[in-house]
Amino acid sequence: MRPDDDLAALLAAAAPQDLRDGDLLCVAHKVVSKAEGRIRRLADIEPGERALAVAAEQGRDPRLMQAVLDETATVLRAERGVLICETRHGYVCANAGVDQSNAGAPGELVLLPTDPDRSARELRAGIAAASGVRPAVLITDSFGRAWRLGQTDVALGAAGLVPIDDRRGRPDARGRELRATMIAVADAVAGAADLARSKDSDEPVVVARGLERFVTAEDGTGAAAMRRPPAEDLFR
Amino acid sequence: MRPDDDLAALLAAAAPQDLRDGDLLCVAHKVVSKAEGRIRRLADIEPGERALAVAAEQGRDPRLMQAVLDETATVLRAERGVLICETRHGYVCANAGVDQSNAGAPGELVLLPTDPDRSARELRAGIAAASGVRPAVLITDSFGRAWRLGQTDVALGAAGLVPIDDRRGRPDARGRELRATMIAVADAVAGAADLARSKDSDEPVVVARGLERFVTAEDGTGAAAMRRPPAEDLFR
Repeated sequence: MRPDDDLAALLAAAAPQDLRDGDLLCVAHKVVSKAEGRIRRLADIEPGERALAVAAEQGRDPRLMQAVLDETATVLRAERGVLICETRHGYVCANAGVDQSNAGAPGELVLLPTDPDRSARELRAGIAAASGVRPAVLITDSFGRAWRLGQTDVALGAAGLVPIDDRRGRPDARGRELRATMIAVADAVAGAADLARSKDSDEPVVVARGLERFVTAEDGTGAAAMRRPPAEDLFR
Repeated sequence: MRPDDDLAALLAAAAPQDLRDGDLLCVAHKVVSKAEGRIRRLADIEPGERALAVAAEQGRDPRLMQAVLDETATVLRAERGVLICETRHGYVCANAGVDQSNAGAPGELVLLPTDPDRSARELRAGIAAASGVRPAVLITDSFGRAWRLGQTDVALGAAGLVPIDDRRGRPDARGRELRATMIAVADAVAGAADLARSKDSDEPVVVARGLERFVTAEDGTGAAAMRRPPAEDLFR
C-alpha cells in the first residue's frame, strides 16, 4: 500500500463473493494511513528543542519524538521510553499512534489518519461504488489500556456501525433499570477482528458478520462518539 | 442460579453436542458469583463511618457503599456516584465490581468471585468430569475504561487460555522487531463473546471456537497475568 493507491477498490476486489450490506469490514488503520500518505521519513525530520529533551529523557530517537509531538495535543505521561498522548483528534494512546512496525520501509513512520471517521465514510462509499455492496467500515488500531497489560484493537473510525449500545434507562433481564450500561460495540468488534488474524499475517482486513443489529444505512456518529470527553475523564 | 447449584454440571448439560477440547467457554461472572454464594443482601449490611461519608458525598446508598468498600483495596477515584476501585484481587473497576443489576432478587448485590482464576479452573475440571470434554474456561465481567466511553467485557478468570500473546522481540511482517506488542487475547475474546448475546438475553455462557492456538492443556497463569502491576501503571 502506497500513497494514492485506491484502497476502496482493492478492498472491493479482495472481498469475499458473498459480502453483504449487513457485514462490517474491519480495516487496520495502517493501510488506510499509507493510502492517505500519512507517512513520514525519519531522515526528513528535524527535531526541535522539546523533542530533543524528551528523547534524552526517554532514551528514544529525537526525530521519532518530534513526529510524536507533532501528532499530540497533550502528553499525559512520559515514562520508560513511552509517551502516553492525547492525539490531536482526542484519542489517548502510546506515542500518539506513531508507529515504526509494519511501516513500508526502514526509517518510515506511519501516523494515524487525520480524520479516521471521514476515512471510514470514504472507504464505505468507495467500496459501494466499486462493488455495489455497502458494508459498514471500521478503522482499527491496537491501543494499550490503563490498569491491564496488553493491547486490544479499538475503533478509531466507523461508518455505518452503532459504536455504543447505550442501554441506560432500559430494564435488565430482572426488570431493574440499567444505570450505567453502555456497551462499547465498536471496540469489542475491533478486538474480535484482531483475533481472526495472526499479528504477522499481513492481513489488514477482517469481515465481521452477524452484527446486523448494529449496522445502519446512515454512516452515523462514527468512532468519535467513543472518546470520553476530557471533563468526564477521571484519568488524564 | 443460587448458592450450591452445580454450575459445572449445568454448563456441561447445556453445552452443544459438538463441544470440543479446543473450544473456550466464556462465562459471565454473575452466575459464577451466585453459585459461589458471593451475594449480599442490602438489608443485612450495617454501613460504617467511611461508607456513610462516601454515600453522602456521592448520593448513593450507604449499605451499597459499605459493600463496595468491603471489596476494595484502594479507592482510586470517587466522583458522580461512582467509585473507581482497585479490588482486593487487584482489578480496577467501578464499584469494585459490586452490582445490583441482574441480581437474583431485589435488594441483593452480586460480588466478584473471590478468586476468579480458581473458579475458572474448578469449572474447567467440573465440566470435564461431567462431560468428558475439557474446553478452556473464561470468566468475564463488563469493565469501563479510562479515556473511552462504554464498557467492554474483560477476563477476570481463565483456565486453559493463553491470556496474552506476547510478541515482543519477534519480527513483524517486514522483519522489524516488535517492541511492545502484547495482544490481550483473553480480553478480546471476552469482548467478542459479549457481542454474541444481547445484554438482556439472560444467556450467561458463550462458546468461542477457532482459538485453538491459544488453548492449552495446562490451566496456565490465568487472567491474573493481565493485571498491570501497580508499579508499572501510570494511571492510578
